[in-house]
Amino acid sequence: MAVYTEVSDDALDAFLEQYRVGRALSCKGIAEGVENSNYLVQTETGPLILTLYEKRVDPGDLPFFLGLMDHLAARGIPCPTPVRGRDGETLRLLAGRPAALVSFLSGMWPRHITPHHCDRLGTALARLHAAGRDFPMTRRNGLGLPDWRPLFDRCADHADEVHPGLAAELDRDLADLEAGWPVGLPTGVIHADLFPDNVFFLRDEISGLIDFYFACTDFLAYDVAVCLNAWCFERPGELNVTKARRLLDRYRATRPVTDAEVAALPVLAQGAAIRFLLTRLYDWVNTPPGALVKPKDPLEYLHILRFHRGVDGAAAYGLA
Amino acid sequence: MAVYTEVSDDALDAFLEQYRVGRALSCKGIAEGVENSNYLVQTETGPLILTLYEKRVDPGDLPFFLGLMDHLAARGIPCPTPVRGRDGETLRLLAGRPAALVSFLSGMWPRHITPHHCDRLGTALARLHAAGRDFPMTRRNGLGLPDWRPLFDRCADHADEVHPGLAAELDRDLADLEAGWPVGLPTGVIHADLFPDNVFFLRDEISGLIDFYFACTDFLAYDVAVCLNAWCFERPGELNVTKARRLLDRYRATRPVTDAEVAALPVLAQGAAIRFLLTRLYDWVNTPPGALVKPKDPLEYLHILRFHRGVDGAAAYGLA
Repeated sequence: MAVYTEVSDDALDAFLEQYRVGRALSCKGIAEGVENSNYLVQTETGPLILTLYEKRVDPGDLPFFLGLMDHLAARGIPCPTPVRGRDGETLRLLAGRPAALVSFLSGMWPRHITPHHCDRLGTALARLHAAGRDFPMTRRNGLGLPDWRPLFDRCADHADEVHPGLAAELDRDLADLEAGWPVGLPTGVIHADLFPDNVFFLRDEISGLIDFYFACTDFLAYDVAVCLNAWCFERPGELNVTKARRLLDRYRATRPVTDAEVAALPVLAQGAAIRFLLTRLYDWVNTPPGALVKPKDPLEYLHILRFHRGVDGAAAYGLA
Repeated sequence: MAVYTEVSDDALDAFLEQYRVGRALSCKGIAEGVENSNYLVQTETGPLILTLYEKRVDPGDLPFFLGLMDHLAARGIPCPTPVRGRDGETLRLLAGRPAALVSFLSGMWPRHITPHHCDRLGTALARLHAAGRDFPMTRRNGLGLPDWRPLFDRCADHADEVHPGLAAELDRDLADLEAGWPVGLPTGVIHADLFPDNVFFLRDEISGLIDFYFACTDFLAYDVAVCLNAWCFERPGELNVTKARRLLDRYRATRPVTDAEVAALPVLAQGAAIRFLLTRLYDWVNTPPGALVKPKDPLEYLHILRFHRGVDGAAAYGLA
């Protein structure tokens, strides 16, 4: 849930005058995205999404994010398309924040994940990776392997309050990952946060991929691992191998994967698990009482992490 | 900010099938209303608002609220119109909650109140009172004079933590109000919570009055007093008499008020101040850490209460 910055009616009117979208008919803060303030704006020309970038987003990264969405949308990926103002720009200031207007996407994110959803996700993820291949900009993954240890150090003291023995367990996992992280896998633009609430479906087909604000340049298979964790586990930490197989098979049918990628999947999935475990743990121990955003349970990802730790090879995920 | 209950895509589809509004194209939780969960649903036939009634609303009151909106909308008041299902009903269950679908209203609530807004509000409030005259149902004001003392008793122990001396000050005010509350004033349906965030403007004219979930049967002039407090004060507790005069003059131009109502305005305004002060105080001392809803500052209303306590008569509000 978001909406941190209030936008006044006057400020919105002045903002919209810089575009060719007509005037606002309404503007409602929506519970979408956790990093930014999002508004659904009904304009005289139709609905649009207005995003105000809050302090967790580095303004220096915005040209990458907006440029990427523009690039992907032009290649048929159903992602938000930044709307250009009369001056040709997609980024400007509103209520003291960097702000952009993007296209509205129909659909709802699935609350109950079925193998069918994973099937469609596999294809969409592979298409996303293919469409990003000729995107000229790059962005370092700010939550990749080198960032996990410093993040852990900032919340390790409180880890055992969340779960007894957690600090020691994570310390060992981090050491294993640092020692065994793959090198040289196919690299490109990844979404890096393609959870179910960032994927819209309409009549059983994907109608939108949203929230590209963690997108970066990293191993493509790491993106697959993030999705495997986010879409294919039943709580607590039980893999639904039917879902995993559908996701991976459809992904491979659209973008052939290398043997090295297949072999690396368990360690990538372990890394993807610890990445979300650590950020959730950090938010959990640092969220002030009364905060508007309810932190997510880090322990869900502890169960997923443990699953991957016990895995021999990618066959565990249903890969033939 | 609301959105407490999650609605799954499947549950929404099944719910909408009971109406003639087409299928859902999207459904976004919106930051509107603090008592209920509200969603902006884009359907094949246009946008609608879906409200799920949370535990602070008594289900027994819902026929009154929905019936009132239906009644007022039929008389040209720009309020949400409950949508009838194929069975003719406006109220049904969704995600285990009573739920209703109502019409979408354009406009935005004004963040910066001008005398012009107060002018339009005065007319709209009087029209609302006139349109409610032949509404056949009644509902006791659950936050009227008899309810203030019990509410105070439930948070008095913590009042001085919010402001030193507050408990004694409120105790005296309550005694004064209990002794001096008017009787026999013109009575009818009142909104009882017509704050700026419940009034939409579009191109400088009122386009919507929303959130009728405190509506009840009480003195009409009490509703005027609620608006006086909510629209005409600059912080901290300074009355903008231009705004007050515009509100009151326009109200009187549409619904003539009695001398008794004019004379009672200071005590009604004092009562309206203590009503919001008490509920805010109660929420302030009872909101658990980490709650999604940020409680409003009760002290804003202490300043308003003190203003009215020092007032001789309605002339202080700019009434000739």
